[in-house]
Amino acid sequence: MPTLNELAALLGAEVVGDGSVVIHRMAPIDSAGPGDITFVANPRYLARLKDTTASAVIIKPGFECPGLAMLVCDNPYLAFAKVLTALHGQRPAPRGVMDGAWVDSTAELGEDITVYPGCVVGKNVRIGRGTILYPGVVLYDGVEVGEDCLVHAGVLVREGCRIGHRVIVQPGAVIGSDGFGFAPDGRGYYKIPQVGIVVLEDDVEVGANVCIDRAAMGVTLVKRGTKIDNLVQIAHNVTIGEDTILVAQVGIAGSSKVGNHCTIGGQAGLAGHIKIGDNTMVAAQSGIMSDLPAGQVFSGTPGMPHREWLKASAAVKNLPSMRKTVSSLQKRIEELEKLVRER
Amino acid sequence: MPTLNELAALLGAEVVGDGSVVIHRMAPIDSAGPGDITFVANPRYLARLKDTTASAVIIKPGFECPGLAMLVCDNPYLAFAKVLTALHGQRPAPRGVMDGAWVDSTAELGEDITVYPGCVVGKNVRIGRGTILYPGVVLYDGVEVGEDCLVHAGVLVREGCRIGHRVIVQPGAVIGSDGFGFAPDGRGYYKIPQVGIVVLEDDVEVGANVCIDRAAMGVTLVKRGTKIDNLVQIAHNVTIGEDTILVAQVGIAGSSKVGNHCTIGGQAGLAGHIKIGDNTMVAAQSGIMSDLPAGQVFSGTPGMPHREWLKASAAVKNLPSMRKTVSSLQKRIEELEKLVRER
Amino acid sequence: MPTLNELAALLGAEVVGDGSVVIHRMAPIDSAGPGDITFVANPRYLARLKDTTASAVIIKPGFECPGLAMLVCDNPYLAFAKVLTALHGQRPAPRGVMDGAWVDSTAELGEDITVYPGCVVGKNVRIGRGTILYPGVVLYDGVEVGEDCLVHAGVLVREGCRIGHRVIVQPGAVIGSDGFGFAPDGRGYYKIPQVGIVVLEDDVEVGANVCIDRAAMGVTLVKRGTKIDNLVQIAHNVTIGEDTILVAQVGIAGSSKVGNHCTIGGQAGLAGHIKIGDNTMVAAQSGIMSDLPAGQVFSGTPGMPHREWLKASAAVKNLPSMRKTVSSLQKRIEELEKLVRER
Repeated sequence: MPTLNELAALLGAEVVGDGSVVIHRMAPIDSAGPGDITFVANPRYLARLKDTTASAVIIKPGFECPGLAMLVCDNPYLAFAKVLTALHGQRPAPRGVMDGAWVDSTAELGEDITVYPGCVVGKNVRIGRGTILYPGVVLYDGVEVGEDCLVHAGVLVREGCRIGHRVIVQPGAVIGSDGFGFAPDGRGYYKIPQVGIVVLEDDVEVGANVCIDRAAMGVTLVKRGTKIDNLVQIAHNVTIGEDTILVAQVGIAGSSKVGNHCTIGGQAGLAGHIKIGDNTMVAAQSGIMSDLPAGQVFSGTPGMPHREWLKASAAVKNLPSMRKTVSSLQKRIEELEKLVRER
Repeated sequence: MPTLNELAALLGAEVVGDGSVVIHRMAPIDSAGPGDITFVANPRYLARLKDTTASAVIIKPGFECPGLAMLVCDNPYLAFAKVLTALHGQRPAPRGVMDGAWVDSTAELGEDITVYPGCVVGKNVRIGRGTILYPGVVLYDGVEVGEDCLVHAGVLVREGCRIGHRVIVQPGAVIGSDGFGFAPDGRGYYKIPQVGIVVLEDDVEVGANVCIDRAAMGVTLVKRGTKIDNLVQIAHNVTIGEDTILVAQVGIAGSSKVGNHCTIGGQAGLAGHIKIGDNTMVAAQSGIMSDLPAGQVFSGTPGMPHREWLKASAAVKNLPSMRKTVSSLQKRIEELEKLVRER
Repeated sequence: MPTLNELAALLGAEVVGDGSVVIHRMAPIDSAGPGDITFVANPRYLARLKDTTASAVIIKPGFECPGLAMLVCDNPYLAFAKVLTALHGQRPAPRGVMDGAWVDSTAELGEDITVYPGCVVGKNVRIGRGTILYPGVVLYDGVEVGEDCLVHAGVLVREGCRIGHRVIVQPGAVIGSDGFGFAPDGRGYYKIPQVGIVVLEDDVEVGANVCIDRAAMGVTLVKRGTKIDNLVQIAHNVTIGEDTILVAQVGIAGSSKVGNHCTIGGQAGLAGHIKIGDNTMVAAQSGIMSDLPAGQVFSGTPGMPHREWLKASAAVKNLPSMRKTVSSLQKRIEELEKLVRER
């Protein structure tokens, strides 16, 4: 395990106190003990440090913690993540293609990969160096997976889809299922073959039981660095920009385009064929039915600027009392009218 | 690959121009090149044909495309789907029960099937001619799957459920999970065994990671030709009619009945024990809590006729300004009352 | 099969009529025939008993059913569930670790277990007596599963998670996927390793394709007796109390705490870091953004007491007519003002 000095070198952070202490574990303030490092990102929680028996704390400049070694840096939350990676983020040693995995002889396998039992790898699949396929992963014919990916158990990738480097896919996600396309034929629905693919660029993360449909023709595209939470639905021919966040249970209908650095809140729905600008936030459970400009926050169904929505939903709550006001006004006007006419 | 004349014969369409050209691929207008066929379903996009180097276009009667062979027909969108099927929809040659598949000796297997590695087929299962089970499909005891089905990777079908002919199930779908039924026993919940099944009739399509629960007693039924998008939840004892469309992330609670030719929009929720008439549309994200008549469009939570909802949601957006109006009216009335009384 | 007297003994119920009749099946009133037992929980349906050819009925005290044997008890619905269990709820005989299952040599396996083909069991896993792993279950290293559990096909449990006794997990559920945690690093997002686990206590049921994320640090906890319907999302560090019901497609964001004996309706969403009191009900599709007290019913987005919501949503429906009222009031006031001023 590393010393506090070693962690500081890794982070480019400053040590205050004994840098030779060996750190075994990251732990929350309340449960940290000797050998643990903890962190304070929010000054509100500084008081809790008094009682801790932790060995060190990650903290912003300008604070004092008597008796506690400090790792001082500008972004304790990011430092916390990096220390956690240093302490707990080791990749297991590669195990090769294990007994009980079925790999087609035409597949091209990089070095230092692991393919667990129960995986099925189709024809002409390419798997990059250092990638791990956990048990039960299925890669249909022609799939490409880049280097240093973690493809968790039960992930199912259909024919021809392409996954970049350092992509993480949580268990049960489906990549490349048929888009939902049918042509009415007068009686019912005729299936439109979905002959496109899905492309996930580098550093994308895909949550558990997510569904990303292949394009009808062309590509359903998730760009570099985007993170997708569990149970999200991405329909055919959608494009998601770079470094965008899709929170759990979001649904995005066909051919819509979401920009870079957006955040789409949980359970929100986006209609098809719309365009969301860069740096836009959509609140949880919103229903967005038309294009949204860049850099703003939207809420509600149909979506509106968040401030408008706050006012509108406060007003909805007060509607019953407003209704009473309106009927009392109605009565007072009737009386006034009577009075005025009588004179 | 077929010639344009051969495709025309297949569709019952008319060729204008050189019918002997060989078609290799369907492509969107913008990316189509020599050897490709493209299509124009919407006259708005006709102008784009000027610059195309495609070999042919599928188009309605009454248009001219100098220098481009035309496949003329009344329903270009349907023709597009059929040409796509002709060009790209070939089923792979059957491979039988492959090494690494586990099939119980009591299972009845039709001719020309494929069972990929990682599949597990239980006792007394019946699989019809031409059906493909992709890797990792699990059929519990007593399951029946009809002819020419595509059951994609990781689909899980529990005991006794029955699937018709030409059914397509996308990866990860679960058919026949226990309905959510518990009897309060004074302290907590006592599980009610779910002893019914799921029946999917012919030509149904089920999306990725969909869940269709088995009936408590009897049958959860999805009728002929109905198409279900990804991540939809269908509870126990539900009946879905024929040729109905359930868009992604819809949830339908127990014992409800949806009619024929309905469309239920994405993320909509239907309460339990209600009945939706034929040809009814429910807008995305609606919450339907009571029966709906046939042939109309409903929106909102609770659901209301779509036109009402449009007015109501416009009014909600204007609520804050209406609120100001009401308080200004209130003041004016007070002043009037004062004035009138003073006289 | 049991006699009516035997079922009565099991339930502590009273038999009226011929207790020696052998019961083969539970069936709904409309389809029950000779050898079947049916039940009436709701006195509304008593009339239907006239025409039944069932052999017996489960019924509350105080009713008469000439010609029909009766199992009389205070809670017919609970009795129905228990009889159904007696008739149909037998566990299959254990089959041990079957061919085609991959179990690491360090795993500790209890007696009378079944591990179907296609299962993969990692290092140092512990499986309790009588538990069944259906085909394709994956238990990562260090997972613990208690006694008499049913873990259905394709369930994926990540490293170190712990499952209690008598837990039922429906097909395709994912337990222990990474929580959705990322630290902005100025350009994009840096992944925060999720080093906690998931704990499911005794008698929990988890629905099909549910996702329960592991804690960032510590535990995501589902307490004893809680029942989770299909496609529910539970984020990292959430705690769900005892005997709570989460209906299908609910989403609960990170670190929130739901009390005991709550019911969260279908498609409802709970924001992160909030606390829901005991015995609280949240209506379907609600969006709860702040703490809720115990013992009440909440609806809407943002959530409000159910009665308020009923009034507010009725008022929303009447908004367009209220709008007309307000503008007519406006005109009448203008006329009055004119009249009064003119005098």
